[in-house]
Amino acid sequence: MSDLQAQILELGRRARNASRLLARAPTTQKNAALLAMADEMVAAQTEIIAANARDLTLAQANGLATAMLDRLRIDEKRLHKMADDVRAVAALPDPVGRVLREWSHPNGMRHTKLSVPLGVIGIIYESRPNVTSDAASLCLKTGNAVILRGGSESLQSNLAIAAALSRGLAKAGLPAEAIQLIPVADRDAVKHLCAMDQFVDLIMPRGGRGLIETVVSHARMPVIKHYDGICILYVDREADLAMAEAIAFNAKCQRPSVCNAIETVLVHRDVASQFLAKTGRALLERGVQLRVDDASRAALGSLAARSATLVSTAQPADYRTEFLDLILAVKVVGSIDEALEHIAANGSHHSDAIITANAVTAERFLAEVDSATVYWNASTRFTDGGEFGFGAEIGISTDKLHARGPMGLEELTTYKYVMRGTGQVRS
Amino acid sequence: MSDLQAQILELGRRARNASRLLARAPTTQKNAALLAMADEMVAAQTEIIAANARDLTLAQANGLATAMLDRLRIDEKRLHKMADDVRAVAALPDPVGRVLREWSHPNGMRHTKLSVPLGVIGIIYESRPNVTSDAASLCLKTGNAVILRGGSESLQSNLAIAAALSRGLAKAGLPAEAIQLIPVADRDAVKHLCAMDQFVDLIMPRGGRGLIETVVSHARMPVIKHYDGICILYVDREADLAMAEAIAFNAKCQRPSVCNAIETVLVHRDVASQFLAKTGRALLERGVQLRVDDASRAALGSLAARSATLVSTAQPADYRTEFLDLILAVKVVGSIDEALEHIAANGSHHSDAIITANAVTAERFLAEVDSATVYWNASTRFTDGGEFGFGAEIGISTDKLHARGPMGLEELTTYKYVMRGTGQVRS
Repeated sequence: MSDLQAQILELGRRARNASRLLARAPTTQKNAALLAMADEMVAAQTEIIAANARDLTLAQANGLATAMLDRLRIDEKRLHKMADDVRAVAALPDPVGRVLREWSHPNGMRHTKLSVPLGVIGIIYESRPNVTSDAASLCLKTGNAVILRGGSESLQSNLAIAAALSRGLAKAGLPAEAIQLIPVADRDAVKHLCAMDQFVDLIMPRGGRGLIETVVSHARMPVIKHYDGICILYVDREADLAMAEAIAFNAKCQRPSVCNAIETVLVHRDVASQFLAKTGRALLERGVQLRVDDASRAALGSLAARSATLVSTAQPADYRTEFLDLILAVKVVGSIDEALEHIAANGSHHSDAIITANAVTAERFLAEVDSATVYWNASTRFTDGGEFGFGAEIGISTDKLHARGPMGLEELTTYKYVMRGTGQVRS
Repeated sequence: MSDLQAQILELGRRARNASRLLARAPTTQKNAALLAMADEMVAAQTEIIAANARDLTLAQANGLATAMLDRLRIDEKRLHKMADDVRAVAALPDPVGRVLREWSHPNGMRHTKLSVPLGVIGIIYESRPNVTSDAASLCLKTGNAVILRGGSESLQSNLAIAAALSRGLAKAGLPAEAIQLIPVADRDAVKHLCAMDQFVDLIMPRGGRGLIETVVSHARMPVIKHYDGICILYVDREADLAMAEAIAFNAKCQRPSVCNAIETVLVHRDVASQFLAKTGRALLERGVQLRVDDASRAALGSLAARSATLVSTAQPADYRTEFLDLILAVKVVGSIDEALEHIAANGSHHSDAIITANAVTAERFLAEVDSATVYWNASTRFTDGGEFGFGAEIGISTDKLHARGPMGLEELTTYKYVMRGTGQVRS
């Protein structure tokens, strides 16, 4: 066993022990810990910002792009925001200890299905150091110990934040090791983390496809993830075209860098010219690049020629790409069946929408599209824990097991069956 | 790509396509298919029993043990029982299409959390061919396509059963490929099945630890399983000892070969002599081998010497062994804390029980033992889908994600969020 593997195993063992204490901590104590964690972050402001400065210096020397440097930066204002976010978690209801179902066996024994913490959660993420306090606070609220693995470029920042969080835990009488950060940048640490299913109940990778692939290939425990958000909007022949335009524009342009933004518009051929003439113009004026098939190009008419720098011919891969940018693939389809086939073949099971005035068509789309969230006459941008009223979001799942779609606090719990008898035996 | 891999991928592709049709099949059609499947099995009685005879001949030539041969055997009576079991699934409520939660966004958009099928389920099992029709019928009822992989010793039987089931599907107008059996014994088939997460949403291995280990190491999709049932009974110092004896005897002896039978009894030292003198005698008279620590041996007193052939000194491994036989590890503990530590270190998170008249002690045990099912004053033998009132059981999970404990039909579904709007966009 390598030193690194032994070190990660020891982290796991400590997390498991901490999780046993945490699972029985009352809500008041967990909330007190969250407030103390926030206070400790603010108290450690100087150290955290200094640690972040070391990360920034190294990142600049390594040629990190300006946008990435900005994501990495922690200033006083951002630190206070992070602390406030931790305090906000204290105000949320505790999802642990809910009676999910209760019934009696014919022999009189009582069955109680009770919500309980998962145990130990591993969270692997890239870049933004606010995820450290964010993820740690949601795991603590739900009674789970957490092992955090941030990006190497934010290692010093994350270590300083995690140390402050652990001090907050200890002040509230909870085990400091309920929040641990893997303190080395070595990439093999992820593989060792993924191997120890005796100590870790769930891994959530948050980042690029390469990271997620590594986790999926190595993990022995369950993984909840989403690879891509290739969200697709279908404009039906019976769509209200003004509504379709507003939704297409919102879903593409309001925040193109997020996973619930659309990447493809499918439009029924009967309304393609009318829709694209107007919506195409609005998108092009906003600077959106259109990747179009021949029929869409024809439907765009003179717009295509006039905006030649923004309009190009779509390759098959364009319909399977998460652009995360002001780029939109467009395709004309001849029927709802063709739209459904396209989504089944190219979508990522995240969020897809239909615009139509026909309820029968809409219900067919809602039933047949196999995605976490399906929309009728609304923007895909609503796939979000906050918009769902969850109060918090630990991630969005395109998996089908345990959690699908936006994940709030409840999704960080499992259940156990508690049976209370009076001597019952099985006959 | 090998021929075998291509063959398994093609199976997966067909299952995925079938699952899309199945997901929207109405309950009446699925129930009609189940009845037709049962009828086809009975109609194919001659072929199925002949195929089974070929399996039996080969198994005998390979020296399979008599008990295993009996498990493998299908006679007319057993076949009719299998068909009846399929018919019984038709009578169960359909868990698909339930509204799990419904609420409105402040902007008026409706959120509906709706239960839907998982998609495609892979089931890998050993030996008994009745699992073929059992698993297939539960998957069909829940709108899931299934890929079955049975034991090599029952391949001919399974092929004949699966063919009959597929004919039943087709007669009810459902895709025959919603039920497919891997038609080759090659062990690499399992690895290929575990690799195709684009077509298979869940793998459930049912069998020995070797099989489950292989699946866990290779699977890219979620796996639900239980390795062991090392169920532990703790007899507290405040236990009703007559109740403790009845429950220990039931949990060990009523059906020792199943996963919810106990493998270890922990007894508080204050009652060890009294409990073991009486319960020990009953167990020894029943022919149960006891693996005891020194304190238990002392508590057994003269019984230990008189039953020397049945009483031996426990090795540490005995407390971590699923005997599945009339063997019981026994240990004296000094406190509930010691019992909890023992369970955390040695148990398998399946089913554990405490016998005590003290409600505070009991509630502590129920809260702190991290197992799927925890019992107070009742036998662990109740961990079973039938005893839970689920009407059916596809397996028992000691995992924490998605399903924990006995799994019925609801556990073979997931959910999607259906959003119905009137043009809402995100601001």
